[in-house]
Amino acid sequence: MYIDTSILNNVAIVLVRPKFPENIGAAARSAMNMGLSRLILVSDREPDKEAMAKMATHKALHIIEGMEIHKNLEDALAPFAYIIGTTARRGRQRGSERSPRQLMGELADFLPNNQAALMFGPEDSGLSNDELKYCQAVSAIPTAGFSSLNLAQAVAIHCYELYHCLIHDQKDLEPVTRCATSFELEGMFQHVEEALVEINFLEEKNHSYWMNNIRKFLGRMQLTSKESNIIRGICRQFMRYQEHYEDR
Amino acid sequence: MYIDTSILNNVAIVLVRPKFPENIGAAARSAMNMGLSRLILVSDREPDKEAMAKMATHKALHIIEGMEIHKNLEDALAPFAYIIGTTARRGRQRGSERSPRQLMGELADFLPNNQAALMFGPEDSGLSNDELKYCQAVSAIPTAGFSSLNLAQAVAIHCYELYHCLIHDQKDLEPVTRCATSFELEGMFQHVEEALVEINFLEEKNHSYWMNNIRKFLGRMQLTSKESNIIRGICRQFMRYQEHYEDR
Repeated sequence: MYIDTSILNNVAIVLVRPKFPENIGAAARSAMNMGLSRLILVSDREPDKEAMAKMATHKALHIIEGMEIHKNLEDALAPFAYIIGTTARRGRQRGSERSPRQLMGELADFLPNNQAALMFGPEDSGLSNDELKYCQAVSAIPTAGFSSLNLAQAVAIHCYELYHCLIHDQKDLEPVTRCATSFELEGMFQHVEEALVEINFLEEKNHSYWMNNIRKFLGRMQLTSKESNIIRGICRQFMRYQEHYEDR
Repeated sequence: MYIDTSILNNVAIVLVRPKFPENIGAAARSAMNMGLSRLILVSDREPDKEAMAKMATHKALHIIEGMEIHKNLEDALAPFAYIIGTTARRGRQRGSERSPRQLMGELADFLPNNQAALMFGPEDSGLSNDELKYCQAVSAIPTAGFSSLNLAQAVAIHCYELYHCLIHDQKDLEPVTRCATSFELEGMFQHVEEALVEINFLEEKNHSYWMNNIRKFLGRMQLTSKESNIIRGICRQFMRYQEHYEDR
């Protein structure tokens, strides 16, 4: 089967607050090695250009130069319909982690009709639970005892697995239809949250615990734009009904 | 099937004349992530300890501290019976390159009874043909257009594939019996070469071209120590016979 490699343009690498510009450069080089070219940085400060460029090599310099920089993670993720977060393997407490090999195979199915992001946290602490809440899936590289990989190497292994599965294994794509973007989902979650507060399902204590659980299953459902709008519509209508009821 | 991870102690990472000590440190960290612990450096000079240690992190410091350093590649490779060299993908002129996924699966079968080495060349030029001649197989990571990976990332991807195939995929091992080591094979090649010079099969012109071809198929044969000794014995006996013949 012939696979159009241009679908790799639908994947972005998102680096959240990396400490070392060298790792941004090395990530750009890995992306370039594996046919990816979109790099997004979430950071408050401009990283040192020279240190990035040295590790990117001249072949991946255009990726560094074209890199989007956002201060806010939610803004950075807004266009993406499928977001994979990465963590070091941490036993079973997070539960939903899967291997890059499995996940890159699934990700490929999203690419013909959706924008997708691979998100990596800071070198020392990784992604927080609050950052992982935007993700449809969480990837952990299988390791022996010492599970903390160098950031650029974690990026390299994910890019390699995606390229390998698409190009080398000639995976048969089973394209997923266009899903709601992170921007649309976040709008929906906000309406869902308001409605659940209104009916006292979400109380102050454990508010975020229950909301995160709801985000998890709604986020996993591969809702279309239309479906997310239906859910929003119901919540909005409920709120209007409540106001009207209270006015009486 | 239960796989004893201690067989990973039978694999060494061999770095040939790396330019940047940071890459040695990062390779040590990757090795540690994936359950490997043996690192060998082929170099004329001692690399900067601080730069290595920084990238190794304290978790892989013992790998740096226990690293063997050799000036000579042949000496470094002497104990190994299965040696995989790595190159950037270079079209078809080398012909025998295969993917790390295939090769790490085969390598695993050697580990119960043999010492094996994964060999990586310098950042800028990679392994020369003269260095690749020691290898039983050559690995090239599949890439998009830009095929030159960062050294530490090439190490990471190979270590990851080996660990993944052994532990995560729970590969069924089909153990290969003990093969001749590189030391034994080099001794044999020397005797074969002398005999072939004597009968004028190897003439000055194209000497190394034909010798390299012979090395290739003899190196691939997975000869046992005993078999390599038989071949040596035949060559030695032939030379003795020749001397005797000339004396008459």
